Amino acid sequence: MNLPYPHFQVNFKVYPDTSGEDALAFARMLETIEAETDARFVLTPQLPDIRLITEHTDLAVTAPAMDAVEPGRGMGKILPETVADAGADGVVINHAENRDTLSDLVWKIERCRDLDLDSVVCVDSIEMGRAVAEFDPDSMIYEMPEDISSDRAITQTHPDRVRDFMSMVEAENPRTRVLVGGGISTAEDVRLAFEQGGHATGAASSVSLASDPEPLLRDIAASFP
Amino acid sequence: MNLPYPHFQVNFKVYPDTSGEDALAFARMLETIEAETDARFVLTPQLPDIRLITEHTDLAVTAPAMDAVEPGRGMGKILPETVADAGADGVVINHAENRDTLSDLVWKIERCRDLDLDSVVCVDSIEMGRAVAEFDPDSMIYEMPEDISSDRAITQTHPDRVRDFMSMVEAENPRTRVLVGGGISTAEDVRLAFEQGGHATGAASSVSLASDPEPLLRDIAASFP
Amino acid sequence: MNLPYPHFQVNFKVYPDTSGEDALAFARMLETIEAETDARFVLTPQLPDIRLITEHTDLAVTAPAMDAVEPGRGMGKILPETVADAGADGVVINHAENRDTLSDLVWKIERCRDLDLDSVVCVDSIEMGRAVAEFDPDSMIYEMPEDISSDRAITQTHPDRVRDFMSMVEAENPRTRVLVGGGISTAEDVRLAFEQGGHATGAASSVSLASDPEPLLRDIAASFP
Amino acid sequence: MNLPYPHFQVNFKVYPDTSGEDALAFARMLETIEAETDARFVLTPQLPDIRLITEHTDLAVTAPAMDAVEPGRGMGKILPETVADAGADGVVINHAENRDTLSDLVWKIERCRDLDLDSVVCVDSIEMGRAVAEFDPDSMIYEMPEDISSDRAITQTHPDRVRDFMSMVEAENPRTRVLVGGGISTAEDVRLAFEQGGHATGAASSVSLASDPEPLLRDIAASFP
Repeated sequence: MNLPYPHFQVNFKVYPDTSGEDALAFARMLETIEAETDARFVLTPQLPDIRLITEHTDLAVTAPAMDAVEPGRGMGKILPETVADAGADGVVINHAENRDTLSDLVWKIERCRDLDLDSVVCVDSIEMGRAVAEFDPDSMIYEMPEDISSDRAITQTHPDRVRDFMSMVEAENPRTRVLVGGGISTAEDVRLAFEQGGHATGAASSVSLASDPEPLLRDIAASFP
Repeated sequence: MNLPYPHFQVNFKVYPDTSGEDALAFARMLETIEAETDARFVLTPQLPDIRLITEHTDLAVTAPAMDAVEPGRGMGKILPETVADAGADGVVINHAENRDTLSDLVWKIERCRDLDLDSVVCVDSIEMGRAVAEFDPDSMIYEMPEDISSDRAITQTHPDRVRDFMSMVEAENPRTRVLVGGGISTAEDVRLAFEQGGHATGAASSVSLASDPEPLLRDIAASFP
Repeated sequence: MNLPYPHFQVNFKVYPDTSGEDALAFARMLETIEAETDARFVLTPQLPDIRLITEHTDLAVTAPAMDAVEPGRGMGKILPETVADAGADGVVINHAENRDTLSDLVWKIERCRDLDLDSVVCVDSIEMGRAVAEFDPDSMIYEMPEDISSDRAITQTHPDRVRDFMSMVEAENPRTRVLVGGGISTAEDVRLAFEQGGHATGAASSVSLASDPEPLLRDIAASFP
Repeated sequence: MNLPYPHFQVNFKVYPDTSGEDALAFARMLETIEAETDARFVLTPQLPDIRLITEHTDLAVTAPAMDAVEPGRGMGKILPETVADAGADGVVINHAENRDTLSDLVWKIERCRDLDLDSVVCVDSIEMGRAVAEFDPDSMIYEMPEDISSDRAITQTHPDRVRDFMSMVEAENPRTRVLVGGGISTAEDVRLAFEQGGHATGAASSVSLASDPEPLLRDIAASFP
């Protein structure tokens, strides 16, 4: 397990102005907040920027994707070995915008294990989480697709589901960590995610599109348990 | 037009031992050969390594792929703007191992134009080349899929097709450059590609999998016109 | 060339209540209108319904898709030979909701030729139409994706583009027929499509979702040249 | 549960000469064997032939695939409602040649339940079977991808795995039926599949490509428990 817990994941997806120097400046701001608080961040940069962040900062970094390919032919594919070589600590699998087949999902969890990458598998429901727990991922991101990029966080709309999800994981595979996500946009959402038992939480649009994200991220840091 | 002509493209695909420090060492070897000869190389590294190569060398670099996406949502996608920001000079489009829809192909050529990236479009046949020439790409890679990763080069098996392809491009869109590829594995293949009118040529497996590629690449450099 | 011209294409896509008995009743209504007027229709039913329509009516029928596969393995694929065997007169290729790679598009046009199926290739723009004309399809459907499922028909918003498209086809490949589509929803749209030079026109949502499509289709029939 | 047990599945995939009249003749031969023996067959024809078989025979039929789409737009998609309307008794999901995302797999099992179609989910391993059992499919096909289209049947090479799989299903979800497949090509393979506890077994290439499949299928019928 490489990623720190509890943590807050900042997910750049491919939002505007989140690559290159912008990405690095953002990452350094997260490092500063880490240095001044108890908060821990995990940054998910764009694929071509992974090495840039890992070389110039000490932040924990997850790759936004990788492909289920072996070294060889496969022009344009994202080779797991190369993601590891670039310094990533983990890889996001089965994101709602980039779904994996069940077979690839299983393959990727195993390949992460071999390469000492944390597997971070997105799931939609308690039922799907229970199925994925069979494959012993390092962590799961539990978010309902309809909440993604919205301003409704599951922690406010369905706190019971978060608690049920945590109970299920505790029963099925207690070593797997859970990030509660989808629509997280305020420090209060973060506080609730931790209060409801989440080991981590995070956001994409609300932090990536903010014109000045630092005050929000400092508020979030102050909401850590 | 960013890429130098004539050139020899070294395409790493996702072959073993072609990422990170291995990629950089290979790139530096190409730089050394460039400094000592008239040869010019274009390197196509793995996606997470583009910036590593462009920051530490002066080689011309093409990205192995990009996605037809705008900034925004799209977890795990390869944003064209980020490829440009990472320092790539161009992008390979419609490779035989990563085919594009016709719509995406057109979109990508246009987006390359906007971002000052060379569009490098792979085609299979003279007929397909004539169709793609309509969209005014900066260059086309003409290779027959059955030759890829083989030791049969079109320059030896079908020299007439190479000449016909060059005549077609000269008639349809003379500014478009043509790389003759597929199964190129010897300096003689390279010499023939240039003799038959190709503006560039290149290889993937034969150079990426060579245990000691430098002698081969020096022979190739000596075959430049 | 199997399809009749001029014609009006009725495209069911996968709209509700367009399969099985509903499909057959709709097809029989089209046959009745054909018998009573000079109009000719081409029906594009759902894939499992092709044979149902061809066995029980004399309507011209196009398949909504086929896959670029040879007989053999390929569970769940749509084999071109089977589409032909089911009685289809043609196949729609590269629809905006089901884009083909350029390679598959070329393959499918050739396979249609071998199997005596009309190739019906969707294109977005004059430029794309010119490229596709290189492959000598039997017909092209010219529609702008933003018009599909809307109530704005290109014949009203961009009549100049329709005329330019027709001139381009006349110059490049005069045997190829052109269906002008996208947002066609009234008899007036149909009249304009023919007046602007289209060899055919058609609609999906406006006829498939109509609670009583017969009056609309009779008006359309009366708009035939 | 619509499918009969025990049964032998004949899977045409898109093998040559398995559509239209050939499909119907094959289906009638299966019906004859059923009438004369205790064997029960499930036929998986090509998609455009489903209705042809269900209209003219009483065989149990599964669709080789369907898409995770709702009625509406979606040109070329296979609508679940239309598969049901065509008379299919069930649908094969997540076949090794047509993998489903985990999300689509879950969606399809639910949609099958709503439409009174048997869900038949392919899995590779005991671990994957345990995960899929969470979603309560009507049946699972357990086959290892390397056995498909081979002449090595799991029943001969790994009988222990078959027994372990059956025990797992018995423990996790005893109502789910299990078809043991992959490389089944002889009556002896069939006998062993039933002996090892399988509720069903089946074949694709060995029966679809046989020049005279009837003797083989009669031998198989005689191997029923």
